[in-house]
Amino acid sequence: MAAPASEVAAPDVSAALVRDAAAVEAVLEELLPEPKGRHARVLDAMRYATFAGGKRLRPYLTVAGARLFGVPEARALRAAAAIEVLHTYSLVHDDLPCMDDDDLRRGRPTTHRQFDEATAVLAGDGLLTIAFEILADPATHPSGDVRARLVSRLAKAAGGEGMIGGQMMDMQSAEHDYDKDEIILLQRMKTGALFEFSAEAGAILAEAGDEHQVRLRSFARDFGLAFQIADDLIDLTGAAETAGKAVGKDEAQGKATLVSIWGIDGARAESRRLADSAAEVLSPYGPAADELRALPYFLLDRTA
Amino acid sequence: MAAPASEVAAPDVSAALVRDAAAVEAVLEELLPEPKGRHARVLDAMRYATFAGGKRLRPYLTVAGARLFGVPEARALRAAAAIEVLHTYSLVHDDLPCMDDDDLRRGRPTTHRQFDEATAVLAGDGLLTIAFEILADPATHPSGDVRARLVSRLAKAAGGEGMIGGQMMDMQSAEHDYDKDEIILLQRMKTGALFEFSAEAGAILAEAGDEHQVRLRSFARDFGLAFQIADDLIDLTGAAETAGKAVGKDEAQGKATLVSIWGIDGARAESRRLADSAAEVLSPYGPAADELRALPYFLLDRTA
Repeated sequence: MAAPASEVAAPDVSAALVRDAAAVEAVLEELLPEPKGRHARVLDAMRYATFAGGKRLRPYLTVAGARLFGVPEARALRAAAAIEVLHTYSLVHDDLPCMDDDDLRRGRPTTHRQFDEATAVLAGDGLLTIAFEILADPATHPSGDVRARLVSRLAKAAGGEGMIGGQMMDMQSAEHDYDKDEIILLQRMKTGALFEFSAEAGAILAEAGDEHQVRLRSFARDFGLAFQIADDLIDLTGAAETAGKAVGKDEAQGKATLVSIWGIDGARAESRRLADSAAEVLSPYGPAADELRALPYFLLDRTA
Repeated sequence: MAAPASEVAAPDVSAALVRDAAAVEAVLEELLPEPKGRHARVLDAMRYATFAGGKRLRPYLTVAGARLFGVPEARALRAAAAIEVLHTYSLVHDDLPCMDDDDLRRGRPTTHRQFDEATAVLAGDGLLTIAFEILADPATHPSGDVRARLVSRLAKAAGGEGMIGGQMMDMQSAEHDYDKDEIILLQRMKTGALFEFSAEAGAILAEAGDEHQVRLRSFARDFGLAFQIADDLIDLTGAAETAGKAVGKDEAQGKATLVSIWGIDGARAESRRLADSAAEVLSPYGPAADELRALPYFLLDRTA
């Protein structure tokens, strides 16, 4: 049984996130091409979108997951960087006028507002593409099989049956009246699938075997849904300055969320249940997984 | 010395293109997910964009290149299919209102006209993503190293220093007055890089070694530029029904092309020189490469 949020070292999670985010950003700095030449504008936009702060939650899952198995940090950081640029691409495209039409992201102009729409489309494409280039590079892992597996799993998580399919569902959510199961499916596809791969990547890098991949995916599935509930709660109750983006949009757009179905208290309770379940699935890793285990409670505290 | 175009079996090229296009389309049919579920719309759009006819030139380069080395056809066709969906994504995004703003593609409404802009962005993203999923799948090649190399080379060809960078240059070509070298660079990035990978993929699948990869890339570089000149000539002189898309756009948009620099006759002469050079580089493969060697002349004939 996991300890209640108040007894878990929540401040350590915050420090761990900051520490690992800095390490990932140093690697991203090396991996993203330096803007020069007549096409510099798109490379510029790729960097603008990537270096915008953010908690770097997905890379954290990768690095912390990889640590459970003693994966060399340089490898874990490259995989984490690939996942973060892929996540960044999805934000750039989701913010476009034809999608969510957002002007602000993490308190700064979105990429298409800072540059222009065409550049933002291309920058997103470039980030998506370089994610696979990073994973396929021998510097990520000496085994070609491991590199190809990382590519394959990331593509599935990000593709039409994963993140892209989830975004398609989301774009249609004002027209359809999604029920609870459909909203859970939407979130699992749109954000859950990439969380699952982020955690699983550590086990893949370690060649730890299916059982561990399944376990980390299961942790991330619970975590991902808890994360989504927290995000919905912040959208509903938070201020734009805390969120770093426009809030109250779900309601304004007539989108059903898990919070609108369960209510605020019900959603908080569900979030706690998910955090407990996520902590439980990591029990075989003992205290080595304490930091990872505390992450869902940390998110829960943010919404209190 | 290559034979003049009229002595080369041009009709065979046409037949070969049709034959291999049918084989690639059968594989694409299996690889693209069947539209079902609440997110079916994006899968639908991915298929709409992909099954729109087209000469399937890039897959042809892959399949014909692979044949030089006796690569099992099922593997070559999967790599070819990955390249074609990646090419298709680039068309879908290039056609968007914020890019070239095209209503017609191959005589049909472009994807964003047939569906909507958001769906077209997502469908392009989905096609780009599935290209890497296809290459990384063990069915494409038993060696993980080969699969990872295919992913890595495709990502480089399609990325910020390749196709995407070229499109960024192209988007800015009305503002800048590109000189000949810049236009050649733009074309090498925008269309040449993917042609190079398409041809090279056959040698990678065969694990034939660097010398062969270099040779096939060199063929494709010449071919790619000849292709671009042919495309520019059709834009300048052709009818919309032949081209299957709007023509005269380069001029209307104030874009410099190689034809505007060399003139029509000069461009034709350069095209012939490129076709000769492309044929020459394949000489070590003897008659086995005849079909491939005839391809640049075939394009030249289309513009006569």
